[in-house]
Amino acid sequence: MKSIGVWILFAATFCYAQDSGDFKPATSNVLDAQYPKVDSSSRVQIRFKAPDATKVRVNFWSGPKADMEKQSDGFWTFTTPPMAPGLHYYTVIVDGAEVSDPASTAYFGGSKWASAVEVPEAGADYYLPKDVPHGQVREIWYHSAVTGTWRHAVVYLPPDYDTQTRVRYPVLYLQHGGGEDESGWIRQGKANFILDNLIASGNTRPMIVVMANGYAARAGYVVPDLTGKPFGSPEFMQVMQERMSAFEDDMTQALIPFVDKTFRTLTDRDHRAMAGLSMGGMQTFQVTFDHLDQFSFIGGFSGAANVFMMGNNKLDTKTAFHGAMADPAAFAKRVHLLWIGVGTDEPDRMKAGLEGLHAALNDGKIQHVFYESPGTNHEWQTWRRDLKDFAPRLFQPASQQQVAANGK
Amino acid sequence: MKSIGVWILFAATFCYAQDSGDFKPATSNVLDAQYPKVDSSSRVQIRFKAPDATKVRVNFWSGPKADMEKQSDGFWTFTTPPMAPGLHYYTVIVDGAEVSDPASTAYFGGSKWASAVEVPEAGADYYLPKDVPHGQVREIWYHSAVTGTWRHAVVYLPPDYDTQTRVRYPVLYLQHGGGEDESGWIRQGKANFILDNLIASGNTRPMIVVMANGYAARAGYVVPDLTGKPFGSPEFMQVMQERMSAFEDDMTQALIPFVDKTFRTLTDRDHRAMAGLSMGGMQTFQVTFDHLDQFSFIGGFSGAANVFMMGNNKLDTKTAFHGAMADPAAFAKRVHLLWIGVGTDEPDRMKAGLEGLHAALNDGKIQHVFYESPGTNHEWQTWRRDLKDFAPRLFQPASQQQVAANGK
Repeated sequence: MKSIGVWILFAATFCYAQDSGDFKPATSNVLDAQYPKVDSSSRVQIRFKAPDATKVRVNFWSGPKADMEKQSDGFWTFTTPPMAPGLHYYTVIVDGAEVSDPASTAYFGGSKWASAVEVPEAGADYYLPKDVPHGQVREIWYHSAVTGTWRHAVVYLPPDYDTQTRVRYPVLYLQHGGGEDESGWIRQGKANFILDNLIASGNTRPMIVVMANGYAARAGYVVPDLTGKPFGSPEFMQVMQERMSAFEDDMTQALIPFVDKTFRTLTDRDHRAMAGLSMGGMQTFQVTFDHLDQFSFIGGFSGAANVFMMGNNKLDTKTAFHGAMADPAAFAKRVHLLWIGVGTDEPDRMKAGLEGLHAALNDGKIQHVFYESPGTNHEWQTWRRDLKDFAPRLFQPASQQQVAANGK
Repeated sequence: MKSIGVWILFAATFCYAQDSGDFKPATSNVLDAQYPKVDSSSRVQIRFKAPDATKVRVNFWSGPKADMEKQSDGFWTFTTPPMAPGLHYYTVIVDGAEVSDPASTAYFGGSKWASAVEVPEAGADYYLPKDVPHGQVREIWYHSAVTGTWRHAVVYLPPDYDTQTRVRYPVLYLQHGGGEDESGWIRQGKANFILDNLIASGNTRPMIVVMANGYAARAGYVVPDLTGKPFGSPEFMQVMQERMSAFEDDMTQALIPFVDKTFRTLTDRDHRAMAGLSMGGMQTFQVTFDHLDQFSFIGGFSGAANVFMMGNNKLDTKTAFHGAMADPAAFAKRVHLLWIGVGTDEPDRMKAGLEGLHAALNDGKIQHVFYESPGTNHEWQTWRRDLKDFAPRLFQPASQQQVAANGK
């Protein structure tokens, strides 16, 4: 797989040398904004107005971090080398103030409404709106006794939901990453279009997808002031742990009952799946392995178990997850799909964690799928591809999952 | 009405003098952000990190515009005088760069994802989520032959829509303002909670509310580069006019048929309403008066006809709107509600336009409702109040509208 990523990079570089810069406004721009622009060799041009600033930097979170160049008209500009395909978060740093680019649609990431630029992937249209039946995305509000608050969630319903009124559907719970929220899988991930297209192709079962907010806090819990405590700091991680525990209860005690009451769902474990990206993958492993009576399909997208915190402690499949994997044959019968994915260009710490889990599962003879997204980082293109591989396998017997994932 | 606004301002000032500053994080902040803060006298504290900046200003679009004060820790701060209640857009200007505050939820306004701070209104909970049945907000995508594109719209369905499966509902088409988009009425306006609460109170008919994107462009139309052309400039207005015309066709030829096909609607003119704020009010008058065979309830919230462009040209009810009002008695029978609203603190140009229309309608003996929101500007608190007064009158005979609007 690694070699494919290198090849794509080579091909992109080759095109770059050939290309004379056919820059067009990015599809992620707000209405009428001319910048950012992207050309056919996947270079990105950023332009930002800051007439009185001394120093302006652009900060792609998984890409170039560089000084921008001041032009005589008060705008600052920067052109990247060819980028990997997908949606790239970035911010602009104006004399020390890290802010979003007003020309970009705002996407919730990094615990704020950040900028991002969409770099198209040649030949990939599985996440674009096409002339196929479209499902609806619904916003729901449910009251949670766990948090003592009204909580907001987003629900995708398959295209035929309102016409096939006697049909009940399986449910995938699909979680965002740390610093993101329940809007991420639709806005950044295009999960609705991915599902529309997969379902239209006939190789994915129509399903309901529920996207919840992963930051629950128990009623009465006072969140400490995290000003100046960055993502990953001990203070931040403690709050995250507390919230993961509250989220587990909220999901199993409030959200799932609400969803099963509100929509025409199939409510048995054979028809309930959970997956999530990064922090959402950790939450998925925590929730599903604590409640295997309720889930039988499990996905970790660039995050699974506490792999980022495991360090050199290799997972022992005989004892991990309350011993659920101690008997590999029994586990394979009980859990219809255990799926783990990682981008080949993700940071070493993340790759090592996921690859370590993959190796440990192999050593323990635990049936699972390990998917590598070629040439993508800890970013949304990895997770779009994950969903494209994962969703067709859902609610299928293990014997048919491979066929579904590769198309009928 | 004016005197009530003055009284509220006086009361707020009085409380201010009494208060020692019980500042709390605004409900419009992103998760965990401590600033902006609001105190019980409606003062707002902004705090913004820009360690190397020379000058940082805060820019409330309908409020204070002022230099912020640099603190020793690299943060800049500013505290406003008591503000009117409601959601106030603002931006921060860092050495000439106008940007959003990363601590605020981003709301689409001013043609970008802008910051805003929610100042609570004492005693007003009609736009807050309460323990009543909640409707769903759905996102739909429809293909428009007018624009040649997939278009996105937002639809509110009343709480009982999924259980009362044999009931058909009347429809209100509700439009955002210039520089905003179809997310505005839910995110900024809280229209779903306003409708939930009104319907639960029993004095508003359960209805479907459709919120479309007001910027349509005909297939093949190339939008000119508007860089450096501000809102209201001739170039901007020409594009807006072109888009209004395209929007009218998109709405009547693509959106309404799609909605009537997709949802259980009542499709006759007695059960179809349209309203909008500012630019959306102009669009409402254009669409409804061009298609009175399809609409019978009309609302202009801080915008109606082309009142901002009329200057000294008083509307002549005998000839305006294709002569629809030439016979006042016939008009009152045909149009069940003509509703116009304005905030008492809106800029003079806007107030003059709406008051002029009101006077012209009075002179022409045209039955209508004129509502003034005390002490609020060209901002969302005005439009929330508008919807609260307008919605109960909908789909009621004229004789019962007053009763409904004032509660049963």
